[in-house]
Amino acid sequence: MEKLWEEVRELSLGTSTQVERLDSPPSPLQFLRDFVSPNKPCVISNATLHWPATTAWTSDSYLLQTLASATVSVHLTPTGRADALAPHSSALCFASAHVQRIPFPFALTAISNSNLDAKFVAYAQQQNDCFRSEYSGLAADCETHIPWASEALGCLPEAVNLWIGNHLSETSFHKDHYENLYAVVTGEKHFILLPPTDVHRMYIRNYPAAHYSYSRDTGEFKLELEDPVRYVPWCSVNPFPSPETKDAEMSEFPLYFNGPKPFECTVKAGEILYLPSMWFHHVRQSQDSRGRTIAINYWYDMQFDIKYAYFNFLRSIDDLTVGEVKCVESFSDASACDSGDE
Amino acid sequence: MEKLWEEVRELSLGTSTQVERLDSPPSPLQFLRDFVSPNKPCVISNATLHWPATTAWTSDSYLLQTLASATVSVHLTPTGRADALAPHSSALCFASAHVQRIPFPFALTAISNSNLDAKFVAYAQQQNDCFRSEYSGLAADCETHIPWASEALGCLPEAVNLWIGNHLSETSFHKDHYENLYAVVTGEKHFILLPPTDVHRMYIRNYPAAHYSYSRDTGEFKLELEDPVRYVPWCSVNPFPSPETKDAEMSEFPLYFNGPKPFECTVKAGEILYLPSMWFHHVRQSQDSRGRTIAINYWYDMQFDIKYAYFNFLRSIDDLTVGEVKCVESFSDASACDSGDE
Repeated sequence: MEKLWEEVRELSLGTSTQVERLDSPPSPLQFLRDFVSPNKPCVISNATLHWPATTAWTSDSYLLQTLASATVSVHLTPTGRADALAPHSSALCFASAHVQRIPFPFALTAISNSNLDAKFVAYAQQQNDCFRSEYSGLAADCETHIPWASEALGCLPEAVNLWIGNHLSETSFHKDHYENLYAVVTGEKHFILLPPTDVHRMYIRNYPAAHYSYSRDTGEFKLELEDPVRYVPWCSVNPFPSPETKDAEMSEFPLYFNGPKPFECTVKAGEILYLPSMWFHHVRQSQDSRGRTIAINYWYDMQFDIKYAYFNFLRSIDDLTVGEVKCVESFSDASACDSGDE
Repeated sequence: MEKLWEEVRELSLGTSTQVERLDSPPSPLQFLRDFVSPNKPCVISNATLHWPATTAWTSDSYLLQTLASATVSVHLTPTGRADALAPHSSALCFASAHVQRIPFPFALTAISNSNLDAKFVAYAQQQNDCFRSEYSGLAADCETHIPWASEALGCLPEAVNLWIGNHLSETSFHKDHYENLYAVVTGEKHFILLPPTDVHRMYIRNYPAAHYSYSRDTGEFKLELEDPVRYVPWCSVNPFPSPETKDAEMSEFPLYFNGPKPFECTVKAGEILYLPSMWFHHVRQSQDSRGRTIAINYWYDMQFDIKYAYFNFLRSIDDLTVGEVKCVESFSDASACDSGDE
């Protein structure tokens, strides 16, 4: 299996950890041939400079004015980590955010007031096509789809999502069943990427689902397990373990920490990341001078083709032993570790 | 693994045994998106009707006149099966044809005189770009490349090969590391196709290489093993076993005979088959009223991408046992069963 990880890099992805960069948007044919078909990421510069959003969204007053009467979904956590593993009793659970629909001006205030010491982080986002619903007031500021991607993929986006947060929000490793065009409007996003061939390096395990609930009265979060218990298969690896847990995590997840280095890229304002379907990704962000990171992503339906069938087969190989792999024919967890997350 | 064979059909290839058909050539984008990227075959009708070859090559006198002074490679076998398994002593070997370069008029006579009772079958072919070398006299009769395929794949053909034979020639199961555009000019070709996911159903085993040598004096073939012995990994399955061996072969190769039915298609004059890279294919042919089958195929370089890496991983899983697969990390045979054949 190590051979597979090496081979996909040597043949196709490249052996550096850098993601390929294009200076301008590709033609539909080039995008399809060089990136979508081989399932290979790229960062495209000068991709959205013609969007009014590029300048308009750098101003809070513009956003406040345009969305004065909008109600938006805000994800609240004490840590900035929603849809991520969190300790509960003496074990780990899969913790989802407290989701609250509030008027946009309050959402912006909550994001500004986010503070890890106060154990309160707000992230305005909802992966339900929110840009075209909650944020319809901003519709004219961006394209409704990415023309060269739509032509290449032969369809329009299934969902367009907006993300407004700051440097405190972080997204844990997961994959999506979509071709993802991720455009950063202000601030920067830092992606760590691992190809689907590397699925065993993610140590996908079942964790009990739990939800944060936030009390406005006490200003505190409670983390409660779902009852009855429901298990969510999720990636166990945190690529940035704290100094205290680093040694333990490195020895618990050696395939990740000792295997080929993951791909990395920083996507800046005006750039688009093509994040291929089924790639594992971890996302951190830097804020602009005003304290915001704003991005919009376009989810296009993926083709469930031979690549997907191969992935499911690979995924079904459960038990790793040294030098030999035992294959168990179980496809039940094929959808493991997907999210509606970025 | 059975699950993989089923899934690639249910998701992508379709569960019928029919190959998808297009009434006219696709756009480059459609070809890339709907067929090359998902590694899915198709037959395109009305693809070459504008070629002078479509009418000119139905006449032997035109061919004889145009190629009067050409020297071409002819593959001679007693059975019509070159690059195929054949009995030698009490075992099977991998038998290659006797290849002879002769003036084209003699080649055409040899093809006409082919006769299984006389144990002599001639097939004018050579997979070394022969159309652009041995048959350069015919260059103006066909396109030098398939425009929509070249644009989709971003390159010109690596090799263009011409095939002149009759119904006695047959090509055994194998795969090629090329994207293959296969245009039939006269007669018909009958393909049996199996996707690369089904590699274990081919029972690829090592066979000692052997060569036919033909004596003009005796009119007989000798089949001689290479010395020193060299082993060629080749597909063990013959999809059309004789009535005498049928039961034995069906019980020796149950994954092939009891698994999902292979895809089938007949490609007629004027049609092109897109035969995706890495697909196993077996080819028989029907002759036109004059007794000829003529085809030309364009080999384009394939992308060695994540699909290829997945295939090699799958191929490395050697030992099949019921309900469980033992994986041995051996990539040495990754190129098994390739040929320079059609």
